[in-house]
Amino acid sequence: MFCGADAVTVPCRDFGATGRAVLERAADVAVLPVENSIAGSVGGSYEVLLDPEFVVIGEVVAPIHHCLLAVPPARMEDLQRVLSHPVALAQCGRFLREHRPMEAVAWYDTAGAAQHVAQLKDPRVAAIAGQHAAARYGLAVLLSDIEDRPDNQTRFLVIAARSRLPDLPVQRGDAGFRTSLQIETKDVPGALARVLNVFAERSLNLSKLEARPGETPWSYLFFIDIDAAVDDVAMKDSLRALDDVAETRVLGSYPRRPATTTISPSRHPQ
Amino acid sequence: MFCGADAVTVPCRDFGATGRAVLERAADVAVLPVENSIAGSVGGSYEVLLDPEFVVIGEVVAPIHHCLLAVPPARMEDLQRVLSHPVALAQCGRFLREHRPMEAVAWYDTAGAAQHVAQLKDPRVAAIAGQHAAARYGLAVLLSDIEDRPDNQTRFLVIAARSRLPDLPVQRGDAGFRTSLQIETKDVPGALARVLNVFAERSLNLSKLEARPGETPWSYLFFIDIDAAVDDVAMKDSLRALDDVAETRVLGSYPRRPATTTISPSRHPQ
Repeated sequence: MFCGADAVTVPCRDFGATGRAVLERAADVAVLPVENSIAGSVGGSYEVLLDPEFVVIGEVVAPIHHCLLAVPPARMEDLQRVLSHPVALAQCGRFLREHRPMEAVAWYDTAGAAQHVAQLKDPRVAAIAGQHAAARYGLAVLLSDIEDRPDNQTRFLVIAARSRLPDLPVQRGDAGFRTSLQIETKDVPGALARVLNVFAERSLNLSKLEARPGETPWSYLFFIDIDAAVDDVAMKDSLRALDDVAETRVLGSYPRRPATTTISPSRHPQ
Repeated sequence: MFCGADAVTVPCRDFGATGRAVLERAADVAVLPVENSIAGSVGGSYEVLLDPEFVVIGEVVAPIHHCLLAVPPARMEDLQRVLSHPVALAQCGRFLREHRPMEAVAWYDTAGAAQHVAQLKDPRVAAIAGQHAAARYGLAVLLSDIEDRPDNQTRFLVIAARSRLPDLPVQRGDAGFRTSLQIETKDVPGALARVLNVFAERSLNLSKLEARPGETPWSYLFFIDIDAAVDDVAMKDSLRALDDVAETRVLGSYPRRPATTTISPSRHPQ
């Protein structure tokens, strides 16, 4: 993974807690899921990125596969409820629609759902979680790969404290660089169009645009990813041009990662 | 509310179920929360809008207030856990940070959390839910209005089946009209900038832009709201101009509603 095989993981209950673990030196980096290719963006992770103490130092794009787990000897036809994290349920929407009246129940995370199913010992209740949770909690894998699409992926951003950048192995990649920006437009008509034109006019590819709530109701902040390094000539030129239309903060610039990294689903919501 | 005081509500477990209730004639309209002014967009609602069977016939913007509920005679200082829907927890993020180590636990909806707290009868466990849930489940209101901002609001879209538009009282409003569009850009650099320019060049205000996952990983569909009626000259002209750069579907055109409507929080996630 990103930090090398001997990295020690620190389980956190929610996204805010992962950020605090970095600021309080319990961890060197936090790995935030920002978007799933089926379920979409993860708002709570963007909340963490708002804190100017953090720098984005990398990204990880990982395939995500889900299993249906239950206490042995449960059978498919006995199941009445299935528990999992809402984002995992969203990734298995087609499976759940095809297996109604099995009822989907949101749980605070996938591994927690598996643990609860193991404790319940009720063959009518299943969990959707990663394969690893079956072994950990003594559950049977009734079905594998129940996500809506076999190419299901989650993109994670790796963040560190600005004042304490970790000494990590150099990340090599031949897919070029990506730069993450936080942009607040001036409150004038067409302001967002002007921001996007700055990049389009310089042939810079925008790979992600996320609107998040701003300071007042129905005002917005934008998180924008551009496929270029922050010190590219066209990017530097864009940042200068943006000064006229928006407030811009560079969250980080890092090598783009193709979707080949395998990440073991952990206790973090996916 | 939108449908008049004598409307009968049909409780639904999730967003997909509200859409099915309309298609299966169990309900005339569905009311989908699309965005909260603190927590941001609600992805599951946008999934429902993808179905071309639906038409957006209106919007409702409602103030949202949350209470901290527990079994009497629970006291603030005894609380160790608080249950609620993740979006409600997100709306009370500041309260939860200030009351750590009280642990926030995601529940499938706010009223369900209140019901569970009432059943548990454990004075260490509270729920975040609307005031109405206190009376319904015999809980004490320990604190009111614990949302991060007193102007917390949720915007709902009202949808109906295209083949069975309901005969509702005419919605009057002096804030003009709004039109919701679903837009798929061609896969060329600067495509989104070209879409936004179409509206900016005609001085049409874009009030909302939501990117949702497209057909393949990391491709996108856009949901765009424009503050104009679909039969305004500038809007018709925009839709013609969009033909060159994107596939566009009009989801609906309806009177804009200011944030004054009071909606009673129901079993639906907020």
